[in-house]
Amino acid sequence: MKKPQTGNTASLYKTKAYSAASETSPLAATSISRRETTDNDVQIEILFCGICHSDLHTVRNEWSSIMPTVYPCVPGHEIVGRVTKIGSAVKKFKPGDLAGVGCLVDSDHTCPNCRDGLEQLCPNQTLTFNSLDKHLGGVTYGGYSESIVVDEHFVLHVPANLNLAGVAPLLCAGITTYSPMRRWGDIKGKKVGVVGLGGLGHMGVKFARAFGAQVVVFTTSENKRQDALRLGANEVVVSSKPGEMQKHAGSFDFILDTIAAVHDINAYINMLGRDGNITLVGAPEKPLSVSAFALLLGRRSLSGSLIGGIAETQEMLDFCGKHDITADVEVIPIQKVNEAYERLVKSDVKYRFSIDMASLKSEQTA
Amino acid sequence: MKKPQTGNTASLYKTKAYSAASETSPLAATSISRRETTDNDVQIEILFCGICHSDLHTVRNEWSSIMPTVYPCVPGHEIVGRVTKIGSAVKKFKPGDLAGVGCLVDSDHTCPNCRDGLEQLCPNQTLTFNSLDKHLGGVTYGGYSESIVVDEHFVLHVPANLNLAGVAPLLCAGITTYSPMRRWGDIKGKKVGVVGLGGLGHMGVKFARAFGAQVVVFTTSENKRQDALRLGANEVVVSSKPGEMQKHAGSFDFILDTIAAVHDINAYINMLGRDGNITLVGAPEKPLSVSAFALLLGRRSLSGSLIGGIAETQEMLDFCGKHDITADVEVIPIQKVNEAYERLVKSDVKYRFSIDMASLKSEQTA
Repeated sequence: MKKPQTGNTASLYKTKAYSAASETSPLAATSISRRETTDNDVQIEILFCGICHSDLHTVRNEWSSIMPTVYPCVPGHEIVGRVTKIGSAVKKFKPGDLAGVGCLVDSDHTCPNCRDGLEQLCPNQTLTFNSLDKHLGGVTYGGYSESIVVDEHFVLHVPANLNLAGVAPLLCAGITTYSPMRRWGDIKGKKVGVVGLGGLGHMGVKFARAFGAQVVVFTTSENKRQDALRLGANEVVVSSKPGEMQKHAGSFDFILDTIAAVHDINAYINMLGRDGNITLVGAPEKPLSVSAFALLLGRRSLSGSLIGGIAETQEMLDFCGKHDITADVEVIPIQKVNEAYERLVKSDVKYRFSIDMASLKSEQTA
Repeated sequence: MKKPQTGNTASLYKTKAYSAASETSPLAATSISRRETTDNDVQIEILFCGICHSDLHTVRNEWSSIMPTVYPCVPGHEIVGRVTKIGSAVKKFKPGDLAGVGCLVDSDHTCPNCRDGLEQLCPNQTLTFNSLDKHLGGVTYGGYSESIVVDEHFVLHVPANLNLAGVAPLLCAGITTYSPMRRWGDIKGKKVGVVGLGGLGHMGVKFARAFGAQVVVFTTSENKRQDALRLGANEVVVSSKPGEMQKHAGSFDFILDTIAAVHDINAYINMLGRDGNITLVGAPEKPLSVSAFALLLGRRSLSGSLIGGIAETQEMLDFCGKHDITADVEVIPIQKVNEAYERLVKSDVKYRFSIDMASLKSEQTA
């Protein structure tokens, strides 16, 4: 395990960011301190940062019971940019390289999960924002910023052929949906459902299709039908129409459930065929009501999955490069971030906001 | 698919049984009709029949919403006996052989589940009691009876070295716990939990130990500790003691949950380590409240399992013969069956009642 450096020894530099001063404050321009690159660090100029629903939950302290927010809070963990500086021991990157950073910027490197490449399950992980900063003390600051400094182990290579605004969301929404599908096994030719067509769901559709599955999107909204088909779905089921649901009962091999609100999970468990699995990647705050009978009759299973490890995130990015997959994004300047949050609450985005961080350069900060 | 015979063509014989006339009636001696053996049938003199909680649920019509009881009802699907007659096409059995019958007496033989040896998931299966009788019309009559006639595909060979009273419960409680453990994979050296120490749980402990697992029993009752250790548990956790539970958090590879009542499933999900699985074999009538977070943090899964197929049931019986495994039973005469039901409701049995069917011979029936 690497010995954490103390806050006292690190050299600092100032960089612009957008932060929230309290759970009721809007995000606003500010200046924050980052450490100068230490031996294993990569400094990245941030070009785009996706807006994940977690950003909003954290800024508004909506997860106070499990992860209270420390203010000021600089969110953002869907980061893509260009390497500007490297530490003396860095081997994987050089200045000028494209680089990505996701939900994690450190872990203990020694626990069984880290040893197995599953840093997302490390009990001593450091999240990209609102997590104890081992170098500086206080909490980590995320990607709504001009630049960031990250241990090279947690920095990803970004394929050069992809649209960078659409790459940013791959670092969270992408890996979150890619990992459980890969874990389930080879879904080529299998019948795969995706529940919910938002930031996560639309990535799930793209991956499932790229893996060769027969993809069915479950949505509550008739007016998402055409878009789901455009994204790669073979079929769309409007879940409020019982006849449409009934037609597919007991027929799915795998379902990816991206809904973060409480919903009728049994309706989807009953869509599964024998030995079918439904994996949750959204985490409703309140418990789900699960019928044991629905699981028993067909030996079905209900799982959870949480982002993915660093090696798998790189695998996902390489896969995206090969198959030309990016998120569908609406690019906004950082000055529109508060408005974007309001629209996010109403699911009014197709399918992810991506902040063009060049817009931050014009802000005057202290 | 074999063409079902109609009720009109079958020859019948009379045999003694215990039946309930209504959901509020006690079980009492009666005479029922069975078909004479057809070409593929085996006639079995029943020596012992275990009492499963399903017997009681069905007799009292407690599953009326999913499987209403037709009266008179003759329950019993943990049957062991001796072959007395065989049909002309029977190949696997001869008169005098030991034989077992479990929860199923027929299926369609042609569906994908049947083709894969998973007759328990066949949509056209015939249960051993209270299920449409394709031969005679009406419903099937179970093992609280002198004899039964069953298609040879659904008749199991019973190892000669085992105590027959203790073999009977293997046909349901045994396969119900054996199948999910085998399906989970090789549990040798793995940490395996068994929740609940009743008819199912005590079999789960015996199998897990025989498979070479490190077995931990979760029980609400301190006074089951010694018995759990005797049955093969390496350790016992009294679930009402938070300190005992906390010690094991995040450490299990697999947990078999045998509790048929609503209970705090999240407490057990949180016992699972990374990629751990908890499989339900009991089916609480009301939905379970499941925390999505508990599943996500550790990529855990919650599954259901339902008895097992015929081939796997034979495998289980052979395994029991080899490892000298039977259920711990309290042998009763059929005349004590109503009293036994009252005790079953209070979980006052270690760990299964097994009816000595010789006791039925003295009954005078019409």
